[in-house]
Amino acid sequence: MSDELVLRDDVDGVAILTLNRPHRRNAWTVPLQRRYYDRLQQCVEDASVRCIVITGAGSTFCPGADTEELQVYTQTGEFNPEMADIEQPDWYPMTVPKPMIAAINGAAAGFGLVQTMMCDVRLAVPDARLSTAFARRGLPALHAASYLLPRLIGASRATELLVSGRTFTTTEAERIGLVHRLIAAPEFMAEVLTYARDLALNCSPASVQHIKQQLRQGSESSFLEVVADAERREHAALASVDFHEGVMSFVERRPPSFAPLGEGGLARQPD
Amino acid sequence: MSDELVLRDDVDGVAILTLNRPHRRNAWTVPLQRRYYDRLQQCVEDASVRCIVITGAGSTFCPGADTEELQVYTQTGEFNPEMADIEQPDWYPMTVPKPMIAAINGAAAGFGLVQTMMCDVRLAVPDARLSTAFARRGLPALHAASYLLPRLIGASRATELLVSGRTFTTTEAERIGLVHRLIAAPEFMAEVLTYARDLALNCSPASVQHIKQQLRQGSESSFLEVVADAERREHAALASVDFHEGVMSFVERRPPSFAPLGEGGLARQPD
Amino acid sequence: MSDELVLRDDVDGVAILTLNRPHRRNAWTVPLQRRYYDRLQQCVEDASVRCIVITGAGSTFCPGADTEELQVYTQTGEFNPEMADIEQPDWYPMTVPKPMIAAINGAAAGFGLVQTMMCDVRLAVPDARLSTAFARRGLPALHAASYLLPRLIGASRATELLVSGRTFTTTEAERIGLVHRLIAAPEFMAEVLTYARDLALNCSPASVQHIKQQLRQGSESSFLEVVADAERREHAALASVDFHEGVMSFVERRPPSFAPLGEGGLARQPD
Repeated sequence: MSDELVLRDDVDGVAILTLNRPHRRNAWTVPLQRRYYDRLQQCVEDASVRCIVITGAGSTFCPGADTEELQVYTQTGEFNPEMADIEQPDWYPMTVPKPMIAAINGAAAGFGLVQTMMCDVRLAVPDARLSTAFARRGLPALHAASYLLPRLIGASRATELLVSGRTFTTTEAERIGLVHRLIAAPEFMAEVLTYARDLALNCSPASVQHIKQQLRQGSESSFLEVVADAERREHAALASVDFHEGVMSFVERRPPSFAPLGEGGLARQPD
Repeated sequence: MSDELVLRDDVDGVAILTLNRPHRRNAWTVPLQRRYYDRLQQCVEDASVRCIVITGAGSTFCPGADTEELQVYTQTGEFNPEMADIEQPDWYPMTVPKPMIAAINGAAAGFGLVQTMMCDVRLAVPDARLSTAFARRGLPALHAASYLLPRLIGASRATELLVSGRTFTTTEAERIGLVHRLIAAPEFMAEVLTYARDLALNCSPASVQHIKQQLRQGSESSFLEVVADAERREHAALASVDFHEGVMSFVERRPPSFAPLGEGGLARQPD
Repeated sequence: MSDELVLRDDVDGVAILTLNRPHRRNAWTVPLQRRYYDRLQQCVEDASVRCIVITGAGSTFCPGADTEELQVYTQTGEFNPEMADIEQPDWYPMTVPKPMIAAINGAAAGFGLVQTMMCDVRLAVPDARLSTAFARRGLPALHAASYLLPRLIGASRATELLVSGRTFTTTEAERIGLVHRLIAAPEFMAEVLTYARDLALNCSPASVQHIKQQLRQGSESSFLEVVADAERREHAALASVDFHEGVMSFVERRPPSFAPLGEGGLARQPD
């Protein structure tokens, strides 16, 4: 097995990033975060990547912070000083303009669960164990959890999961909308790839970038700001390469061929 | 068949507006929008209308913008200049103070789906096809979609539907809360009317106006602003015609007889 | 039977408060509110209480304001002057820093339903009747209802329940996420207690206080404000008694022994 902390495999425009500390069930550490965020940034910059999948090596996704690291914190009462070396903020994944899919292949808790919340889509095997965990460790809701979870699934279910810190399953998570689809283990990664490939092939990178920006901004903007911003974006898009291709492929009932990120939003040259 | 773009039928205080371009599956055009919004405004001004139902002629609701119109846009890169003639803003339906029910009789996509999001209630036949569609046409989320969908059903499911632009069904939409009830096609409009008539008969127009304003304002107000506003509204309502009727009809176990919009909130004259 | 308006029973760190006007189905009155809020405040101040359960005497939870009180309002058009004697604001329960569980043992409507919305967890018997009710009484959405309900379960379902004012059941409420779990009547209070005891024993009071504050503030803060606040809280927690206990009990696979509220967040003294 590789001792690479985060593996990357590319197929058909999809980059699969695998958290790879199976001897610790892929528990989160500062070096893992640094490596994962670097890998993400490479995927953002790589024009061939149109969709990113995150998963875990072995039978878990990520149980949260490594307890060995946590025990150091309880001794020092301080953050790991190596965190200062991570260039990107904790919430860097939320700025990625490409579709991000969490492929939850097993248990996820704490910051491991928060990582899935920062993705756009969550696909999971049934019956894997999940937990926000914070309330049972003497911690506040870490990172963006108290912001994201109520917005993702409504404050009713989010509050119960955060205040109780109880274990729940991916099966319950699918019922309440945190997970979008359950896929049985044997066909899990194959079905995840089918889903990811569909996005890589059929969704305009320029559109996805717009929509992800709109969703982030829209959660903190007034209704009128959102519609004014949407109109500006629409106006720019009407003249764009990708809109022309989107309409023509639809009318001609053929698969689209969208431009890479950064090019699809450019104005189309007249025929 | 009428060549009227939007039909109106009234029954028991319910106005049924039917998008009527069945030869184009009721695809959205600028003239259709103008006619629909004018019809809505007439319903707002007509004291006899207590509930508004929107549906589509034939077997679809509305597949979004007419592709013939879209192809013109791809050529010109500009909005249809006729849009300047529509007096009401795109989001005019959200300002209607009466209950609005989308009766989703078949497929809805793009701006057709957004129109249903601007209603208060969505009733649908099972297994009809829905799609946000934007990401597959090279477009941003149009109009208020990026504001409304995350608030309507939570950002988790909304993000997946907007980023992927995939087709889903009314049956899935009911499961995730976008559609409130599924009704089989044979009894569809009869059951929609039963639901609408109940609102027309039993809900105070003054209350509904309050509640719709409160929901719109409340999505952008602080908690303390909302409770202060609710107290002001409550104080005015305690003295009103409709509150007296609401309590007395409840105590006397009889149907209420609420005043038309604009009158039910007025102070009641002493007996 | 006691003529005490709100009963209190304590067991294993759980305080059970019972609305006790069974001859009026526990309908809400000004004296009931005053007594309930006083009881809550006592539970906040009592270090032995780690979880609070609210339920109703007999077979209903609370049908809302007592119609006898409502009829007085329709005559005077004014608030009950005794309300001026209630020290705490209507939304006082939302400020309680301990876990609050609504044990919905039967019908709940109007302000009775709003009381459950101000709790963190809602457990219910199946098939009990619920209603927002306001639209059918000539009232606006009272208190915080128009703020809370859309955030709790999404604006789609919230709007339909508020605009229509229709009766729904706890069984539907569980499906849409307003109720967290259905428990059949015979074992209802026993199962509620099992749930409550788990929180009292295994959740850090300091964590719960953090999380409830984060959720309230987070609904009105920007994403960046929330993550900055979470980092400040995390930094304080890393040095705290409860974090040390949370990690050590987890590593040692034993139940935690968290400090009472106000002490668990204090810095731990070196061994």
